Amino acid sequence: MVDEISEECGVIGIWGHEHASRIAAMGLFAMQHRGQEASGIAATDGREVRLVRQMGLVARLTEYCAEHGELPGHAAIGHVRYSTAGGSALINAQPFLIRHKRGPLAIGHNGNLINAKALRHQMEEMGHIFQSTSDTEAILHLVARHPSEDIDEAVRASLAKVHGSYCVVMLAKDRMFVGRDPMGIRPLCLGRLEKAWVVASESCAFDLVGATYVRDIEPGELLVIDEKGTRSLRIAESTKRAHCIFEFVYFSRPDSLIFGHSCDKIRRRLGKQLATECPAEADVVIGVPDSSNTAALGFSHKSGIRFEIGLLRNHYVGRTFIDPTQAGREYKVKLKFNPIPGVLKGRRVVLVDDSIVRGTTLRSLCRMVREAGASEIHVRISSPPVRHPCFYGMDFPTETELLASNMSVEDMRKYLGVDSLGYLSIDGMVNTARELEGQFCTGCFSGCYPDEELNKPERNQTALPL
Amino acid sequence: MVDEISEECGVIGIWGHEHASRIAAMGLFAMQHRGQEASGIAATDGREVRLVRQMGLVARLTEYCAEHGELPGHAAIGHVRYSTAGGSALINAQPFLIRHKRGPLAIGHNGNLINAKALRHQMEEMGHIFQSTSDTEAILHLVARHPSEDIDEAVRASLAKVHGSYCVVMLAKDRMFVGRDPMGIRPLCLGRLEKAWVVASESCAFDLVGATYVRDIEPGELLVIDEKGTRSLRIAESTKRAHCIFEFVYFSRPDSLIFGHSCDKIRRRLGKQLATECPAEADVVIGVPDSSNTAALGFSHKSGIRFEIGLLRNHYVGRTFIDPTQAGREYKVKLKFNPIPGVLKGRRVVLVDDSIVRGTTLRSLCRMVREAGASEIHVRISSPPVRHPCFYGMDFPTETELLASNMSVEDMRKYLGVDSLGYLSIDGMVNTARELEGQFCTGCFSGCYPDEELNKPERNQTALPL
Amino acid sequence: MVDEISEECGVIGIWGHEHASRIAAMGLFAMQHRGQEASGIAATDGREVRLVRQMGLVARLTEYCAEHGELPGHAAIGHVRYSTAGGSALINAQPFLIRHKRGPLAIGHNGNLINAKALRHQMEEMGHIFQSTSDTEAILHLVARHPSEDIDEAVRASLAKVHGSYCVVMLAKDRMFVGRDPMGIRPLCLGRLEKAWVVASESCAFDLVGATYVRDIEPGELLVIDEKGTRSLRIAESTKRAHCIFEFVYFSRPDSLIFGHSCDKIRRRLGKQLATECPAEADVVIGVPDSSNTAALGFSHKSGIRFEIGLLRNHYVGRTFIDPTQAGREYKVKLKFNPIPGVLKGRRVVLVDDSIVRGTTLRSLCRMVREAGASEIHVRISSPPVRHPCFYGMDFPTETELLASNMSVEDMRKYLGVDSLGYLSIDGMVNTARELEGQFCTGCFSGCYPDEELNKPERNQTALPL
Amino acid sequence: MVDEISEECGVIGIWGHEHASRIAAMGLFAMQHRGQEASGIAATDGREVRLVRQMGLVARLTEYCAEHGELPGHAAIGHVRYSTAGGSALINAQPFLIRHKRGPLAIGHNGNLINAKALRHQMEEMGHIFQSTSDTEAILHLVARHPSEDIDEAVRASLAKVHGSYCVVMLAKDRMFVGRDPMGIRPLCLGRLEKAWVVASESCAFDLVGATYVRDIEPGELLVIDEKGTRSLRIAESTKRAHCIFEFVYFSRPDSLIFGHSCDKIRRRLGKQLATECPAEADVVIGVPDSSNTAALGFSHKSGIRFEIGLLRNHYVGRTFIDPTQAGREYKVKLKFNPIPGVLKGRRVVLVDDSIVRGTTLRSLCRMVREAGASEIHVRISSPPVRHPCFYGMDFPTETELLASNMSVEDMRKYLGVDSLGYLSIDGMVNTARELEGQFCTGCFSGCYPDEELNKPERNQTALPL
Repeated sequence: MVDEISEECGVIGIWGHEHASRIAAMGLFAMQHRGQEASGIAATDGREVRLVRQMGLVARLTEYCAEHGELPGHAAIGHVRYSTAGGSALINAQPFLIRHKRGPLAIGHNGNLINAKALRHQMEEMGHIFQSTSDTEAILHLVARHPSEDIDEAVRASLAKVHGSYCVVMLAKDRMFVGRDPMGIRPLCLGRLEKAWVVASESCAFDLVGATYVRDIEPGELLVIDEKGTRSLRIAESTKRAHCIFEFVYFSRPDSLIFGHSCDKIRRRLGKQLATECPAEADVVIGVPDSSNTAALGFSHKSGIRFEIGLLRNHYVGRTFIDPTQAGREYKVKLKFNPIPGVLKGRRVVLVDDSIVRGTTLRSLCRMVREAGASEIHVRISSPPVRHPCFYGMDFPTETELLASNMSVEDMRKYLGVDSLGYLSIDGMVNTARELEGQFCTGCFSGCYPDEELNKPERNQTALPL
Repeated sequence: MVDEISEECGVIGIWGHEHASRIAAMGLFAMQHRGQEASGIAATDGREVRLVRQMGLVARLTEYCAEHGELPGHAAIGHVRYSTAGGSALINAQPFLIRHKRGPLAIGHNGNLINAKALRHQMEEMGHIFQSTSDTEAILHLVARHPSEDIDEAVRASLAKVHGSYCVVMLAKDRMFVGRDPMGIRPLCLGRLEKAWVVASESCAFDLVGATYVRDIEPGELLVIDEKGTRSLRIAESTKRAHCIFEFVYFSRPDSLIFGHSCDKIRRRLGKQLATECPAEADVVIGVPDSSNTAALGFSHKSGIRFEIGLLRNHYVGRTFIDPTQAGREYKVKLKFNPIPGVLKGRRVVLVDDSIVRGTTLRSLCRMVREAGASEIHVRISSPPVRHPCFYGMDFPTETELLASNMSVEDMRKYLGVDSLGYLSIDGMVNTARELEGQFCTGCFSGCYPDEELNKPERNQTALPL
Repeated sequence: MVDEISEECGVIGIWGHEHASRIAAMGLFAMQHRGQEASGIAATDGREVRLVRQMGLVARLTEYCAEHGELPGHAAIGHVRYSTAGGSALINAQPFLIRHKRGPLAIGHNGNLINAKALRHQMEEMGHIFQSTSDTEAILHLVARHPSEDIDEAVRASLAKVHGSYCVVMLAKDRMFVGRDPMGIRPLCLGRLEKAWVVASESCAFDLVGATYVRDIEPGELLVIDEKGTRSLRIAESTKRAHCIFEFVYFSRPDSLIFGHSCDKIRRRLGKQLATECPAEADVVIGVPDSSNTAALGFSHKSGIRFEIGLLRNHYVGRTFIDPTQAGREYKVKLKFNPIPGVLKGRRVVLVDDSIVRGTTLRSLCRMVREAGASEIHVRISSPPVRHPCFYGMDFPTETELLASNMSVEDMRKYLGVDSLGYLSIDGMVNTARELEGQFCTGCFSGCYPDEELNKPERNQTALPL
Repeated sequence: MVDEISEECGVIGIWGHEHASRIAAMGLFAMQHRGQEASGIAATDGREVRLVRQMGLVARLTEYCAEHGELPGHAAIGHVRYSTAGGSALINAQPFLIRHKRGPLAIGHNGNLINAKALRHQMEEMGHIFQSTSDTEAILHLVARHPSEDIDEAVRASLAKVHGSYCVVMLAKDRMFVGRDPMGIRPLCLGRLEKAWVVASESCAFDLVGATYVRDIEPGELLVIDEKGTRSLRIAESTKRAHCIFEFVYFSRPDSLIFGHSCDKIRRRLGKQLATECPAEADVVIGVPDSSNTAALGFSHKSGIRFEIGLLRNHYVGRTFIDPTQAGREYKVKLKFNPIPGVLKGRRVVLVDDSIVRGTTLRSLCRMVREAGASEIHVRISSPPVRHPCFYGMDFPTETELLASNMSVEDMRKYLGVDSLGYLSIDGMVNTARELEGQFCTGCFSGCYPDEELNKPERNQTALPL
């Protein structure tokens, strides 16, 4: 997978603030959960676009800026990155900054292009050189190749040629581009900070920098911001929506507005629906901290079973899922979680988690809960079984590593060593969301993707009993 | 305060394990919340005592060991340190390792000696030199000066001369000493890991390394461990107990056994008692994450008001209280907490916190909660007002900086900008604990200290109305 | 000068050695004097080309490799870089590694392309994107654009399109390219290490790695090395030679063979010729250590005046000329040199230096020599006045900063504060070299460059009296 | 040898300058050749003594100070340290800073105390604790123990109790002490920088900071400097002098005044005397750079054989002798030296070196010279054979590792693989120096030490033929 890297990332852009790069760094900090491997900022002062990138947490980026001076300029874009080990290097850290006939251009991208490999092959044949292994670089080549004198049109037309999911922020000397794919797969929202415009993957970035949420960037919209103001171009017409429902399930921060709705609220509803679909006789409900506490609260409220904090997280270790290397996962579980025996001992426990990917972490957790004295363990998952790959940027393992692709729910229950295991149904999940009038991509659960070319017959044959 | 540094730290000791220093590092990691400024380990292989110390998190210590090789030996002691800025340097990081007439001797100490300054002055007059500004060094000089050929007796008699709080682990080439002050002010417990003995400030260290809790080190006990086994000496007779109740209120990890009891359970009871003493008309109860969630749950269960997660913590920033520098506290609050508007908007909110020291953090939080739309805010504190200094190692600011030393509760309510403010009473707190048959030090709340010499008249005249 | 960076660098290539990247690092270490700002290595194992680059001395590169493992493969290229501050960043460090239609390709380049800006502009117009500010990237684009299926021909034809000076090493998965410009401006030689082929800017790299000098890469030669052996292609026909005579004067290590001749021998001859042209009545001859000692010995042998070591260098500071920042040059002189009063006191001193660029360093040195008691100082320069820029990679300052562009020799004597100042004549220098049958570029001395387009009338009008 | 570390170091002290610590750092930089393992500075502003120490070169110390701010104060002492691997740690880096009954006291020490072990044992028995493995700490304990109220007398009397070699600088809040052992084994000189007093191991430190040499600190003198001025106390009466002649032979910088005389001049005389004692038929004389070039020039002038630069040093590697680890010495020789074939080919070469310790470096060099084409090699050593240990701080290996302790001169010649080997005689060396009216310690050559207790019969029986 060296040539095509799936990644889940976060982007930010700000136009019209005297400390644009500092604001960008703060916003990235708020979205640190979207990528801990590398972070970077590009800024323009109207004359030059400058770039700084660092491996590791955003804190290292701000340390660097504190030492070497903030990037000057009134506009900036930023990126946090999480990627598979294969592409784990500074060369793939974003923003990318290149120079082409229209001057310098920087880009930060969250999403995954499903035709990147083909585009790359095509352009290599035409004599282009590639310096990274990221699919994002293809966008830059398309822009550079485009004959139009008008950079707005060049960017618009280039984005129209890429398929898949993308939320991009691009920075030229004199303008900023903000684009989102026509199905709106990943979230991207627009905010206002005094006179400045801010865009970010999640609204939690606005809260930290003091900006106000205005609206989502429309699917298929290309927003151009320059000194004259903002204008919206249309990348492609599309009435089809395919918001990634996994952003609600797990990825986004609960205090964010995602696809225009409160992530926390949806997550609580998923918990309630789960209680309805898969009830349990139990004494306490606990969540896997911190991401599943909200769903666990929903489960508790619906079921009337008492919510407790039965597992603690050690804050000195990062998020398991987001770690690019798999080595030592088992050991890290032990470092990261500690059960509260007083809560668990002799109790029948409902343990709510948001999803099961490989299942190794959860298995260790269940063993911990058992050893802490729980008399029964009922695992409840606030989403359906993840059985298929994501082609839009969520870095799931291959199907052979996905637990639910290889086992029936009963086998998974045995594997986890628990008394019962219940999943939310796809319908239950989508119905919860449908009240919110969204249309969602459920590819990783259903194997049915919004891009038809992905729905090859051989992809959709998994038919394990729920 | 250069000469006398108050510090709250964590210690560990292990005897009889082939990877003693690795186990010690793991245990320190579990107790990272007790000190993030520096950490160190000393180990013996029977022939030599070796030392490694690093500034920063325990992770840096393990990185160092990964690079330079684990300290060899079957026994090790370790220390994590938090200290005031004045003494913030590697020279004060522990363990200390010295050589004296009986060979090398390392020491790690949690607590604070109230006669350290006097002892130091006395020994300087006798020609001793001091290399650190820590009170711990005094113990080493006492041991070195002691005429006895028997090191056990020298250590015992030396500890008998120091007053205040101490949990010490000491390591000679051929034995380990574990001592605790006669009133048992700080926690220290003994565990078993296969054939090895482990001691640690908190039992959560046992859970991580796989050890089993055996018992607390007795107040006034000096446990000596060597190849012949263990033996208990008595430092001083004392029937008076003065366990630091603040360990339950805030400092210890909830999953730890402290003074023989579950910290989580006590913390929940404090929340219940708080609901009884200071009820509130409200829609939701939220806690200041993560330390006050347990008390908030207790409040919720007793009051019947729904518990919600209304504030989120960003895990990429450390614990406010534990940061040795005060600079930028306000800014860090904003980085660290984010309110969930969906939970707070239009709601009457009970906000439970464990204590108020300076009050600046809480004030910012209350403003956040208000801005997120709460219609009323009722702050409830699961301990009494902190009005007096701690002489036993809790690093409170001076009385002039303690909010409750300078304001009445009503003035504090106004300062925080909330609708009501309620504190747990000293009696309520102690009664909760008394069920557990402990005797506690309430000095920071009551101004009444277990060492009589600290109860000078001028110390106890604060008389602000609750 | 952001778009076009002049640089003097060093390159190495090795094909057919099991520790190719280690050998490359050793060779770079031997050529450290050619660039201290950054260093890098690319290696191939036949399947993949891998890259590592570091800012700073080669030692940092080897540290990195020691920690992360040697780059695997039987072939490697390497580069040390010195550049002006404007381009001082990892993004410009070489080798560059890109992917194009024929797979991965790495390049390291010593020299300067005089048509890089034009080529870049042309290719940007055709839709190419540039990621560095280095002229080297143009070569990669030319190769990628070239329609031929045959990579050998693509590389050959691309090099034929660039003008100026270049010694390039390029590495594909299955072959190595070694190319030199048709006038042979910079040195590049070929050696043998057992069965492996080695190329390097200077033969001193061969001595360290244990290789044997075979011959120079011919001007205009493109040597291709792969598993079938070596073959020589012709980039362009050229009978004109323009070896950079400054390599002999200053830049190369004295123990290197440069353009097929011993640098040390030429340097000594320049000293002898200088003694003939500009004799002096004096008691001792001293050189500016370490680069001018050889010329000073030549002066001493010819003149019969005793050679002495009258100035010492502190080895803990790097070479002045090679430092990319000008800040604090005066202070660094003081750190770097210390006069020996016993040698200088009361003596008439001939001080030999190889060249004068800005003159600030030499002026400080002369003051030192005077303060150490010299009764007379006669400065003798073993090359003619540097009055013109170098377009082929020697990083001279602009003409306004070149002392000899702005002052007559008599004014320079006064500026230096010495009793006499003598320069070697251009004829004298070239005659010394002509015995060796070389044809040299004297552009920086004469303003007359081998590329005719550089000899614009306005360039050649400086006419200060010698 | 953990308990008693021989070390050769450098010290500096300055009193009465507003940038005392910066001046101290500059002076240490000039004496970097005396110790590259660690460096440190202590400074006083009259109220507090502060300390900073770093492993590695002085540059790291100045980097640290640039980042964290210069140590404030009008007086400072500094130390560069070189030591054997056993004690290679920050804990042994100097200055040491302790607190005792008279307040803070810092010390930096160059030399070696022959009764340190005994003193340490004695004081440990009296209850003192030791934190380093350095003999220097003993001095601090003696001062702290001394009953006198008068710190001047306490320091004086303490120094009177230690035997061996010492040049110490000590800093209290309000005064600086400068002491030298009664036989004046190591060099220590006094200078003036405007109104400030400076002391340094070598006068080259004065040259860099702009100070003027005033005189040597007298053997047995304790100079006290405070705001009232300077006063000289007498540590012990001694008419016997035992200047370390090895400072002239190798250790000191040639531009320093050592024991009141120019090191360069003495070194040249040793070369002349060597030419007289051990003439050779040869074409060229070369020195081992850089330390032996001066002696080689002396040999050349006396013999009339032409001096040439036949070996080059790579300045990117440090001094062999001074590296605390022996590992990879052979490889480092190759990295460090490169022969000039044009100078050596077909020539009969006199190769002058200052001394032979293990002989491994020289042997590699001789092989290089041979391979570069020398027809004959005549090694000439500008000092007598080193056959005995140094007890005064020169870090020679044990006698079993000293080449001359184990081989006759003829065997050494064979070992080196050269045509002849000639050593300077002890008489020749001492006579050269005696003209300068010094009295020298020749212990490492003769086995006869100025402290009679070291001249045990068993020490002096080596009787290999010269």
